[in-house]
Amino acid sequence: MRLTRAEVEEYRALWRKEGRATAGHFLLEGWRALTAAGAADAPIVSVAVRADEFERDELAAIRQRGVPISTLSERDLDRISATEHSQGVIARVRIIRHELAELLKPGERLLLALDGVSDPGNLGTLIRTADWFGAGGVLLGQGCVDPFNEKVVRATAASLFHVPVVSDLDLPSALRDAKSAGFQIVIADAEASETLSSWRPAKRTALVLGSEAHGVSASVREITDVAIAIPRSGRAESLNVAVAAGIILNHVWKN
Amino acid sequence: MRLTRAEVEEYRALWRKEGRATAGHFLLEGWRALTAAGAADAPIVSVAVRADEFERDELAAIRQRGVPISTLSERDLDRISATEHSQGVIARVRIIRHELAELLKPGERLLLALDGVSDPGNLGTLIRTADWFGAGGVLLGQGCVDPFNEKVVRATAASLFHVPVVSDLDLPSALRDAKSAGFQIVIADAEASETLSSWRPAKRTALVLGSEAHGVSASVREITDVAIAIPRSGRAESLNVAVAAGIILNHVWKN
Repeated sequence: MRLTRAEVEEYRALWRKEGRATAGHFLLEGWRALTAAGAADAPIVSVAVRADEFERDELAAIRQRGVPISTLSERDLDRISATEHSQGVIARVRIIRHELAELLKPGERLLLALDGVSDPGNLGTLIRTADWFGAGGVLLGQGCVDPFNEKVVRATAASLFHVPVVSDLDLPSALRDAKSAGFQIVIADAEASETLSSWRPAKRTALVLGSEAHGVSASVREITDVAIAIPRSGRAESLNVAVAAGIILNHVWKN
Repeated sequence: MRLTRAEVEEYRALWRKEGRATAGHFLLEGWRALTAAGAADAPIVSVAVRADEFERDELAAIRQRGVPISTLSERDLDRISATEHSQGVIARVRIIRHELAELLKPGERLLLALDGVSDPGNLGTLIRTADWFGAGGVLLGQGCVDPFNEKVVRATAASLFHVPVVSDLDLPSALRDAKSAGFQIVIADAEASETLSSWRPAKRTALVLGSEAHGVSASVREITDVAIAIPRSGRAESLNVAVAAGIILNHVWKN
């Protein structure tokens, strides 16, 4: 069946944060992303493909799960797609809301919390990095970009379906809860006296990273247990926030 | 003095790789970037600012070095600027060409070589990461994006002025030269049996990373001494290439 005009508008509305909040859905583009979402048992609501792609192998498993698959014209695809060169497929996926309490339950060892990370590429890479190192969740404070923004979704690869992300948090309050649950609150700070290699992580670690321009906010600093520095031997003023996260999470993983 | 029409066109030509090759200059936008370039003694050729910015403090040091500073109209600025919201300053900087032999000279311990890294943001972040860890240089194979592309320049922060970058290399041949000079050729490979924490780097390390989609090419693999894996405890299919570089360079730095 072909997407109706009303359905095209429903898809389009999901590029805006308010549209996603109302519908409870977000959009996923491209064959790789769709396959990864299927493999991760993501709650795919519907799929729209260009007519010539209707018989693609990648759709078989999704069809079997009873997900409705519609076709759409090149013109409607251009209207819906956020990419310059659409691969001819776009899916609506239900947003699964997670609660902070889930992430603090016994057994979870590692959390990543982000304070004011407004760059979508960085946020997506951070979620992917947290996924690689088996973090139990990602906490986003109010200044962060929406995790279902299309650029974030693209940069996460499928990690958005592997790691629970809780957004729009009052971060100091959430971190106080994490602290009560036994998490050590750790920040990265180039000026810190403790260096990464001498730091022995506690049983439960919540790593907090801020924006590259501003670092973590004063209210987060107040409840920090440990500040660690990644030693520098060159001249760069700072490390990219996702690179810093990778280095620290790899250290936690080893220790 | 105001930029002439011909000068405006000279600036504009530098957004294209061929234009940069002909003039031997590239463009730098924004006050932070200009200040960092000044601090790094970068060979700034000329600066163009919007008339209302002509007395900015940041220009004093540059003026003192005898660099010509012109004004330009908002309209010309829009024509020249690659950013949506220009800060009102744009500079031409001379491209310093480096030779591979420089990077192989005794004393340099660490090189980063990149094979087919076509994403400008990733390349910029990689150069910045190499700078943080004091790498003696960055080698770029033929499939990499041009390091003087505006998105790369923005993502490097000022690291392009700290770390020599040699581009358009025949990478297998360059790495054979590095090997002859005593560098151990190391690649990252999720399937490798040796893991990062058990690997003791040699005195001289050349770390080679490929694109996220394709990894390093077969001809580079052939001359590799060691393949190492960054252990994964989660479900992400891969790490971002700059994150992987950060984790490995941090390990080399410590050992």
